[in-house]
Amino acid sequence: MTQLESAKKDKISEEMVMVAKKEGLDPSYILEGVKSGHIVIPCNSLRHTERICGIGKGLKTKVNANVGTSQDLPDQEEAINKMRVAIEAGADAVMDLSTGEGIATIRKNMLKDCPVPFGTVPIYEAACKAIDREGAIRGLTADDIFDAISAQARDGVDFMTIHSGITFASIERLKQQNRLINIVSRGGAFLAEWILLNDTENPLFERFDEVLDIARKYDITISLGDGMRPGTIADATDRPQIQELILLGELAKKAKDAGVQVMIEGPGHIPIDQIEANVLLEKRLCDGAPFYVLGPLVTDVAPGYDHITAAIGGAIAAMAGADFLCYVTPSEHLSIPSIEDVKDGVIASRIAAHAADIAKGVKGALDWDIAISGARKALDWNKQIELSIDKEKASLYRKRHNPKSEDVCTMCSDYCSIKNLNKLDLIRNS
Amino acid sequence: MTQLESAKKDKISEEMVMVAKKEGLDPSYILEGVKSGHIVIPCNSLRHTERICGIGKGLKTKVNANVGTSQDLPDQEEAINKMRVAIEAGADAVMDLSTGEGIATIRKNMLKDCPVPFGTVPIYEAACKAIDREGAIRGLTADDIFDAISAQARDGVDFMTIHSGITFASIERLKQQNRLINIVSRGGAFLAEWILLNDTENPLFERFDEVLDIARKYDITISLGDGMRPGTIADATDRPQIQELILLGELAKKAKDAGVQVMIEGPGHIPIDQIEANVLLEKRLCDGAPFYVLGPLVTDVAPGYDHITAAIGGAIAAMAGADFLCYVTPSEHLSIPSIEDVKDGVIASRIAAHAADIAKGVKGALDWDIAISGARKALDWNKQIELSIDKEKASLYRKRHNPKSEDVCTMCSDYCSIKNLNKLDLIRNS
Repeated sequence: MTQLESAKKDKISEEMVMVAKKEGLDPSYILEGVKSGHIVIPCNSLRHTERICGIGKGLKTKVNANVGTSQDLPDQEEAINKMRVAIEAGADAVMDLSTGEGIATIRKNMLKDCPVPFGTVPIYEAACKAIDREGAIRGLTADDIFDAISAQARDGVDFMTIHSGITFASIERLKQQNRLINIVSRGGAFLAEWILLNDTENPLFERFDEVLDIARKYDITISLGDGMRPGTIADATDRPQIQELILLGELAKKAKDAGVQVMIEGPGHIPIDQIEANVLLEKRLCDGAPFYVLGPLVTDVAPGYDHITAAIGGAIAAMAGADFLCYVTPSEHLSIPSIEDVKDGVIASRIAAHAADIAKGVKGALDWDIAISGARKALDWNKQIELSIDKEKASLYRKRHNPKSEDVCTMCSDYCSIKNLNKLDLIRNS
Repeated sequence: MTQLESAKKDKISEEMVMVAKKEGLDPSYILEGVKSGHIVIPCNSLRHTERICGIGKGLKTKVNANVGTSQDLPDQEEAINKMRVAIEAGADAVMDLSTGEGIATIRKNMLKDCPVPFGTVPIYEAACKAIDREGAIRGLTADDIFDAISAQARDGVDFMTIHSGITFASIERLKQQNRLINIVSRGGAFLAEWILLNDTENPLFERFDEVLDIARKYDITISLGDGMRPGTIADATDRPQIQELILLGELAKKAKDAGVQVMIEGPGHIPIDQIEANVLLEKRLCDGAPFYVLGPLVTDVAPGYDHITAAIGGAIAAMAGADFLCYVTPSEHLSIPSIEDVKDGVIASRIAAHAADIAKGVKGALDWDIAISGARKALDWNKQIELSIDKEKASLYRKRHNPKSEDVCTMCSDYCSIKNLNKLDLIRNS
């Protein structure tokens, strides 16, 4: 039984109890969220995720880190290290986006070692295999795609990006749109190219029921991919993007009716003033399914700093109701991320998620800020560092120079406003 | 004649023409903005700033970098290098916040070398001198304060933070508030301590007319300091903060009536959902005076990453109408920033400013994104790097690994979505 099937029968599962405990909420709240499709719990029935993770309405905003190999950097050990670093830095989930040699091998190895929900994009494996075999994407078959989905399901993958929204209808609107950059989704591009070259509808759309059959069998959460996400601010919120979102809304409904958990992937490059509308659209068009956004990046001009452009967008999106942030690293648009980039990306996304959780009033969020600020007020540096989102970095910065007075820092030294005001009788009693 | 006096006489100054040219706007728009107090042009009449800078409604959002020495890091050459790095990274203005030995010397040396508007906080020099002389802030005199303002005015300082809002009235509300952290503004803390120890009203409030006399003489833009800004999310938008803002609004009106340009400083630590209200309050209570915000930082938990917490807040504030962003560096709350931190802080703030300018529709903002995305679409890596906000860093990331195919990057290699879609007939003609 999937989590959704269980919820429909008003049966609180073990996983729902675990999610409730982690969030400090009542299990019945989780049950109702799963039942209505507003919460998903990605957890393949073949696998026991140590750190269970609920994603959706009323829960803490979660962060995903994409890792994996590429043709230019096929080193599997390094990719697995990136996964470990991402999880250490606090990622709630990881996705393996490997496209280097040995996709099945790295996936199996990662899964052995992954305590958090694990996602994939099966079209990558299918496309890479077909290109290897046929020399071009054109020779990809529907069987390649379903074989990849089945194999990955059996390996224990918890959630899968499925690009069912790249169809004749959305491609037609793409053609008419005259976008600045047509498609920047790798999976979306594979499928659009295949559809155009073969003049054949997307098997992930036409045979969506078969996708659902596999997903239901293993309780895989379907993450409907946004192949038409804008790749530049100039293309944001246009007709192909929204056409695809309508299709995804319809498919999400099918999934839920079939007892399959589903979330929706979102953009992308979006100017700040359009982010709230994008979240609202997703919630309305997809009946409140959890929204999983990549960024959004709020400007195109900052390669080298896209963890920051994404943190700005992610915070605004999450405040507006996005539930799951896919991190972006500083190397986005320029190269495959280094291990340091992976850490920076996770921390930046966690900052965005937490800032939004404070604003949304998520249970317990503000308590963290109050605790660290209490330590700051008390000039308790050890505790302040202990409570920092990245203890290691905070400690490094603290120790870079040695203040003459140990209770202050080198910025204000003995002119520290907190220290000097503490001497007066304004001190907070509580 | 100050810029404001000139505007009141409907006389377009040379500086207004320069600002108009830089912004791509009509000089009459700048004149009207200055006249209404919605735009300031910080430019001491004794000094010719090479890179003139208008701040306010309808103009590009500007970025300030704070630099300077501290008791623990008194190295003046290093502080001056930080100023240079900040300007190279694109800061529109700098402030010298030195509190190490030789405050007058470093200021004069910085001013010699500074092509952008230059700001100070005179209470620092006054307080440091008094503490040196008397052993404690208590012995500070009103003369110390006015001497510092006068000396700095004669040196050519373009804008000055003046903490006139720390008064009996705002301190009384601070006492009643039971804040988690009382005061985190260094200038605010000096004055609050002094007021409480001497039971005497703030000279910068009581004798504000004398401040205005000096400011008018040199056309110094007064930046009314927010000594009561919240230092933790938990204290945001409380009674002492808003009481001070009311006072600043009244003082801003006095300044404008006296022909003195004025802007208002703002918080601080503010949760995302309160930022827009804070901007609205400033605009309403201060008759549309330009709003100069420090951050805001959207969470307290990320020391080591406060350039990111501030970029999130700054982008949201600027979209809501804030005009001038004071950068925050990664070392905030932990130590005086390094040269690298200064650069990181400026770039993060510039990203926030630019992202907001796209959203606000500031003239020319989106053009930059369209240009870099055009280069990205064309797989023109040199042009993409040339157009990046930080060419040096973008180039470094690009070169870190060498892709086998030179037209792609090591992330997607030959599976590059842009490259593969470019082959099809979807290409944008325009």
